[in-house]
Amino acid sequence: MTKYVSFRRPDGAPGFGRLDGGEIVELAAAGGPQSLKAALAEGTLAALKDGARFAAADIVLLPVIPDPAKILCVGLNYADHVKETGREQKEHPAIFVRYADSLVAHGQPLVKPAVTDRFDYEGELAVVIGKPCHKVKRADAHAYIAGYAPFNDGSARDWQRHNIQFTPGKTFPGTGGFGPALVTPDEIGDLGALRVQTRLNGQLVQDQPIADMIWDIGTVIEYISAFTPLAPGDVIATGTPGGVGDKRTPPLYMKAGDKVEVEIGNIGILTNRVIDEQ
Amino acid sequence: MTKYVSFRRPDGAPGFGRLDGGEIVELAAAGGPQSLKAALAEGTLAALKDGARFAAADIVLLPVIPDPAKILCVGLNYADHVKETGREQKEHPAIFVRYADSLVAHGQPLVKPAVTDRFDYEGELAVVIGKPCHKVKRADAHAYIAGYAPFNDGSARDWQRHNIQFTPGKTFPGTGGFGPALVTPDEIGDLGALRVQTRLNGQLVQDQPIADMIWDIGTVIEYISAFTPLAPGDVIATGTPGGVGDKRTPPLYMKAGDKVEVEIGNIGILTNRVIDEQ
Repeated sequence: MTKYVSFRRPDGAPGFGRLDGGEIVELAAAGGPQSLKAALAEGTLAALKDGARFAAADIVLLPVIPDPAKILCVGLNYADHVKETGREQKEHPAIFVRYADSLVAHGQPLVKPAVTDRFDYEGELAVVIGKPCHKVKRADAHAYIAGYAPFNDGSARDWQRHNIQFTPGKTFPGTGGFGPALVTPDEIGDLGALRVQTRLNGQLVQDQPIADMIWDIGTVIEYISAFTPLAPGDVIATGTPGGVGDKRTPPLYMKAGDKVEVEIGNIGILTNRVIDEQ
Repeated sequence: MTKYVSFRRPDGAPGFGRLDGGEIVELAAAGGPQSLKAALAEGTLAALKDGARFAAADIVLLPVIPDPAKILCVGLNYADHVKETGREQKEHPAIFVRYADSLVAHGQPLVKPAVTDRFDYEGELAVVIGKPCHKVKRADAHAYIAGYAPFNDGSARDWQRHNIQFTPGKTFPGTGGFGPALVTPDEIGDLGALRVQTRLNGQLVQDQPIADMIWDIGTVIEYISAFTPLAPGDVIATGTPGGVGDKRTPPLYMKAGDKVEVEIGNIGILTNRVIDEQ
């Protein structure tokens, strides 16, 4: 199991590397790929030579992939969440889009937009695509996965429901947590047994195994790649379990000072503090 | 009124320029911007010097902006269309997303996906953003508009309604017509008086003035830029009038061999032939 990260080097330039205990080992080199996305595209990631080492504690992470061309989000992919939203379960998943400029890294502030008081968490498993693919069959889908990461599909619930399409509430700058690392599929073990657990200020608010997905990861990749080609570094956020704040009584929204965590077994823990938009 | 185009040069390289009667005047030069989007970003478009001239008839156009970072589409922005869909009119517009790899130029084939028999037209006015903007007020919005172009938001109606989010039916490769040219706002005259007219095999199937929009262009830019920053070359497809094929009795879908045109007064005519996906 390798954990790849994107980060800001001490000189301010973006870099990428892998976690090695408490250190980050840089993998960018002159003449080689300069980003995790580029290394995936070149197919050279696993063969890159170790470079400089930094103490992880001194380094500011970037979102796992800072610049995915496509971020597709699955809505309504856990029955408990479908039920709490009062929506009907359909034959196919609901797919909407986020933009890359809405992403923040592990350890960076998650930004509550000034225009909403209904800023909600959605813990999710993100799949990062490793190879170009189009019209992939479910049975072949796992060959196109570079790895996994925790994701927090932060949502302005009022803007999400201004009308019938979710995107306005789903792509405010700084609202999507993505990290800490891209974890390769080997050695994860039984992915379905891992639980997507979201904690708000230490309180467990979402907790469901990945096996509870209505459409499993292979089915989701088959469905999405049927209508749009995917490229290395593209991200699929696979949907959130039940327990979102907006459907609680009373509702539980994120506000400045809150600590929100998304933990998915050995894939890692994504932690963000919430701040008000400046 | 200047009409800018993106095109493929006779040597195969992408280029951009302006229409001058029956000719295309190239505007790319060594050391200068190499795309219409880059020229907008540099703010130098109007000052670029004339280069080579090509007979327009010999040139293959590209989508007006071949590579917009964001293409945001307004759903349900004409009352007649809201009515024909049987949906409720909301306080805010419905916004969904297309990807750039779904675009085709004027004169290029529009591709009916093999997986749908409900491939429908949606004639629209596209707005191209000229300057970076975020949280723009309606009254200031027009300062950020580079120009306009006809757009055909080609839709796989079954995939659009697989679930509650439209994107799956809205971004199949080759389904979005965008062209022929980016038309600068000067000399257009009364934009609201222009009619969005769609013809399928010569039959007028949509015909409504831009003034009939529920949310006018300034309001749409204010709304969208409130939740996501916009950059030069970004595209807003402002919604389709009544008359879509899916809501006709009997339904009227596009099939291989059909000719579909979207005409918007002096902004131009977008023409595409429909082909089956290969």
